[in-house]
Amino acid sequence: MTGPIFPPGFAEQLDTLLTWRRDVRHFQTVPLPDGTLDHLLDRAALAPSVGNSQPWRFVRVLSAERRAAIVAHVEAENRKAAAIYRDETRAAYDALKLHGLQEAPEPLAVFCETNPAAGHGLGRQTMPETLACSVVMAIHTLWLAARAIGIGVGWVSIVDPVAINRLLDVPEDWRFVALLCLGYPAEQHETPELVRRRWQDRLPADQTRFTR
Amino acid sequence: MTGPIFPPGFAEQLDTLLTWRRDVRHFQTVPLPDGTLDHLLDRAALAPSVGNSQPWRFVRVLSAERRAAIVAHVEAENRKAAAIYRDETRAAYDALKLHGLQEAPEPLAVFCETNPAAGHGLGRQTMPETLACSVVMAIHTLWLAARAIGIGVGWVSIVDPVAINRLLDVPEDWRFVALLCLGYPAEQHETPELVRRRWQDRLPADQTRFTR
Repeated sequence: MTGPIFPPGFAEQLDTLLTWRRDVRHFQTVPLPDGTLDHLLDRAALAPSVGNSQPWRFVRVLSAERRAAIVAHVEAENRKAAAIYRDETRAAYDALKLHGLQEAPEPLAVFCETNPAAGHGLGRQTMPETLACSVVMAIHTLWLAARAIGIGVGWVSIVDPVAINRLLDVPEDWRFVALLCLGYPAEQHETPELVRRRWQDRLPADQTRFTR
Repeated sequence: MTGPIFPPGFAEQLDTLLTWRRDVRHFQTVPLPDGTLDHLLDRAALAPSVGNSQPWRFVRVLSAERRAAIVAHVEAENRKAAAIYRDETRAAYDALKLHGLQEAPEPLAVFCETNPAAGHGLGRQTMPETLACSVVMAIHTLWLAARAIGIGVGWVSIVDPVAINRLLDVPEDWRFVALLCLGYPAEQHETPELVRRRWQDRLPADQTRFTR
């Protein structure tokens, strides 16, 4: 069997996608077209998973009340997180917009089934965390598929995972992985916001690559 | 600023890439061209990371002695993992080839720096595991960039993480995430090996998607 044939330039276009992906915190409020979320979740389901366990559980947040409760929770956790910074670092932190939960048209919570029947345990006996790794790759797949059709994704991580399970009334054995915001970006940037705002530049290659 | 312009058909070609990605366990032994690994690691560095912390640490395994020690370790762990299965499930498990560590031209171990200076702690106060999530997205980025130029990647997870730190002599505060095999695939398949061998089929969408 022969593999897929990509047209000339595909690898370079993929580079463009990776370069422009962005963690989006500034959204337009216009809703996604009908069926778009399911289209993206179909792509996410193509992600690799340990033993083909597919442990991703996606929860679309439709209730305005639940969204408001999540926003209040994130704001409270963010005030605590901000308290570790002092002086100019604190001022820089406070100036960052860390999530677009209020305006993004499609908030999506993502969980990991911690003991899935699917996969029959294959590949995860010594490293059960590979289940969560599988969920993260599904999120990243969704992220890239979204960006390829002009939709931005932001990952909100300043939350207490247990609180999100409670606020969304999902089973205790689903481990919270990420709270995502999906929507059309209000701005387009080739450079990450944290680089533009001089919070953290990219690292030189020799700080992350080694040989043995 | 306007965003990237993708040519017509790009989203469909990305679908093809996602569909044909595969976890590769059957490799040709032909080496990767000079510079290819660095090219792929440059792409991996475009992955999202919490607070732009870039906590990925890639270790290229060049030493034949270290590779042999890793293979012996994986085989020993796999014998233990196999012991949980009985009868026909055990026979099916034993028939699976779970890694291509012996023949793949480029074994690559991936770790997570658990307390990186980069990022100044942003975004990970409540969920320190977002560092490992960042590393996983770098791995997935490398995986897709590799497949786009015809190179396969396999993720070996049946290892004791602490043993790999010791076998590769890396710092204790690097958390082992994955052992990857890179090389040209010996076979091309549109369907995952675990589906073809009837170990685990894909799940229907309604088992992984919910609303609240």
